[in-house]
Amino acid sequence: MDNNKSLDYLFKPKSIALIGAAHSEEKLGGVILKNLLKFRGRVYPINPKYGELMGLKSYGSMRDIPEAVDLTIVMRPASEVPEILNGLAGKSKSVIIAASGFAEIGQTGLQEEVKKIGEDIGVRILGPNCMGLYNPYHNLDTFFLPYERLKRPKKGNVSVVSQSGAILSCLLSAVRETNAGVSKAIGYGNAVDIDELDIYEYFAGDKNTDVVISYIESLGDGRKFIEKAKMLSAKKSLLILKAGKGASGQAAAFSHTGRLAGKYEVFHSILKQFGIRETADFDELIDAVKALSYQRPAGGNRVCIITNGGGSGVLAADECVIQGLEVAKLPDDKAEKLRRVFPYFYGVNNPIDLTAQVKDEDYITALNELKDDYDGFVIIALPNVMGITERLADMIKTVRPDIDKPMVFHIPRNGVAKKLISSLEKIKIPVYPSPERSVRGLKALLE
Amino acid sequence: MDNNKSLDYLFKPKSIALIGAAHSEEKLGGVILKNLLKFRGRVYPINPKYGELMGLKSYGSMRDIPEAVDLTIVMRPASEVPEILNGLAGKSKSVIIAASGFAEIGQTGLQEEVKKIGEDIGVRILGPNCMGLYNPYHNLDTFFLPYERLKRPKKGNVSVVSQSGAILSCLLSAVRETNAGVSKAIGYGNAVDIDELDIYEYFAGDKNTDVVISYIESLGDGRKFIEKAKMLSAKKSLLILKAGKGASGQAAAFSHTGRLAGKYEVFHSILKQFGIRETADFDELIDAVKALSYQRPAGGNRVCIITNGGGSGVLAADECVIQGLEVAKLPDDKAEKLRRVFPYFYGVNNPIDLTAQVKDEDYITALNELKDDYDGFVIIALPNVMGITERLADMIKTVRPDIDKPMVFHIPRNGVAKKLISSLEKIKIPVYPSPERSVRGLKALLE
Repeated sequence: MDNNKSLDYLFKPKSIALIGAAHSEEKLGGVILKNLLKFRGRVYPINPKYGELMGLKSYGSMRDIPEAVDLTIVMRPASEVPEILNGLAGKSKSVIIAASGFAEIGQTGLQEEVKKIGEDIGVRILGPNCMGLYNPYHNLDTFFLPYERLKRPKKGNVSVVSQSGAILSCLLSAVRETNAGVSKAIGYGNAVDIDELDIYEYFAGDKNTDVVISYIESLGDGRKFIEKAKMLSAKKSLLILKAGKGASGQAAAFSHTGRLAGKYEVFHSILKQFGIRETADFDELIDAVKALSYQRPAGGNRVCIITNGGGSGVLAADECVIQGLEVAKLPDDKAEKLRRVFPYFYGVNNPIDLTAQVKDEDYITALNELKDDYDGFVIIALPNVMGITERLADMIKTVRPDIDKPMVFHIPRNGVAKKLISSLEKIKIPVYPSPERSVRGLKALLE
Repeated sequence: MDNNKSLDYLFKPKSIALIGAAHSEEKLGGVILKNLLKFRGRVYPINPKYGELMGLKSYGSMRDIPEAVDLTIVMRPASEVPEILNGLAGKSKSVIIAASGFAEIGQTGLQEEVKKIGEDIGVRILGPNCMGLYNPYHNLDTFFLPYERLKRPKKGNVSVVSQSGAILSCLLSAVRETNAGVSKAIGYGNAVDIDELDIYEYFAGDKNTDVVISYIESLGDGRKFIEKAKMLSAKKSLLILKAGKGASGQAAAFSHTGRLAGKYEVFHSILKQFGIRETADFDELIDAVKALSYQRPAGGNRVCIITNGGGSGVLAADECVIQGLEVAKLPDDKAEKLRRVFPYFYGVNNPIDLTAQVKDEDYITALNELKDDYDGFVIIALPNVMGITERLADMIKTVRPDIDKPMVFHIPRNGVAKKLISSLEKIKIPVYPSPERSVRGLKALLE
């Protein structure tokens, strides 16, 4: 069957069976069942010991449920998985195997057996040793993590695909913290069947996805990977975080998912050659995701920095150079005009230094004058002076339709400007806690 | 006079005059006066228009105050400064000139005049174009920023010296956010007299200072700088953040403080040669400050990573390699012992992977076994699973006296583990929001 159609059973099932359902959140099978209660389709808990679980009728086995389901979630120990899988023939279109205890601890025979059964019975497998998935557009949440322990992000345009469940959960927390939202999130673990390539193909066709985060420890077929990553990059903003870079990381990656990490330098240079974006670390990834989820990427590399703190402007200008962005001189006529309207002690260069005597409207004056001369704007508003107020967000909101260029803010995270930051982020202006990080955010939009 | 003795008048005055005092916080002279109300020594507001300001007797001029003061703060426009300075002869030991409008906007003549008057009348000058200083051990706060706009950090062991006032305020916000505290903070601006070298010498002898942050845009005498920086590095943990690295940043730095930034590459390689620490950006600086302010630096480079999330361990291991830290293999006997006590599916390698089945006490088991085999520990506790609880901080507290090695945590900042994070930081274990940043924190302690 067509990959995307078969993955629809996984991402948008109409019916779900849960093998290993439990009655309380003290067991992982109970956590999953609770998370499935929000699902609007049919849910069949399976546990021979109970007649009812969390208000739902419980079934003794897959044979007892009244239909073939789109998705089965298996929350039973590794050793039981082959027999359970055999019982899914004709009863389920896809299956999530959450349990660990396969190739990652040397049980490659068991993993091969699972893979073969899946092929034989024609069921698409996610896992084993995986986190499952989250699709808020479909009220679907198969994670074995309680909501109180991992607050899910809201609906949005970021999709996450991660080999590691731990990193998936960290990415979701970080996306939530940036006030961005998620379209789909999936942890594929040991990838005996569904891997990053299948998921890339699926996300490429997902209308709710604008940005894709992909955390990778190891690859199967490198050539196919490049092909799919290129295809996805052409349609969405794909950001790759590769782990297992050095020898230590590679050893750790192997014992974690049982696939070899391969030579990182090769991977890195091939990605670069094909223009596929790789981020250096977790924080850089999240800063880029924030920008790309808020605003549409654009071309060019000429940046204007407007600041009320000289030193912060210097740090931003330095980072622009590191990122290959040009802090281009103001056009002479515009500079002359700004010198006439601003107090004599403002610095009318690039960065424009509005000094500690700044007023909110000065930013707007500068932006209106320069909106056609630059490709992107870094705005630094240190709220330690009285001239920076919450009105700045309203003013930006008013002029924003006329300034259709990438625009990021740096405002220190010191509690003083909480409302200003949240108002700016509501109108999709990302705010960063340091000058350098704001420049890196802008860089993501200008690539 | 001896540098440190004359700087005592600045950092620990017994009496202060404020020229340009105002009656409300709408004026900068009012902000400073309000901040001086906490000072326990004598304060003389000077403003000929008032008899009383904020409950203090106000004076018409310096001639009217009943004593020669240790420190005078001048909050008047640049053009008035020379005359005001002349009036300080014999009336003040030191002076802070806050106003801008000197070399940074091309008024080099005015700046030279100020410098010369200071030398003639034998008064030490901080500034002009500077933020002033904060010494919580002396209840002294001369900043022209209202407390509500810049919440000051508590007393602590970090001293900050910054050419830029804006960066000084950002650094103080960041130090406060790390739950570290400040010994002394000073912004020296255009540095006609007191510069980073004088302040390095002073901080070297300050018993409350363990860590010094120095933000530099431009230098006077490079040779002397290296000499003083070496001297300070030998006594305290000195961390330098240099701005004005590229051509854009250098131009910005010049228009900001009127001193040339110089060739960055030369500066960078000389610092490296003399073992003086430079941090790459604002965030890396703060991460290092947090670690060094919490714990004593130590030698060695063998790191043990203990995690409950495989992928997070891999990212940490990668960053160790980048930072030149060795993720050394577990000793065979210890590994064997841990394999006996841990469930079979735990990964007993380095990183040690306690998996999603982790319990708090597993970290303690591993730490007790390995405390003598490594130079530092990175502990990753993802709180998305039920086995991580607030008890972990108590357990660490109990074993900490027996594990006298640098130790850092990574816990994602997702709101779930707020109490755990705050309990750990109370016992001086720094917690970082990403695996990579926790490794960089540990690196600062192992340098």
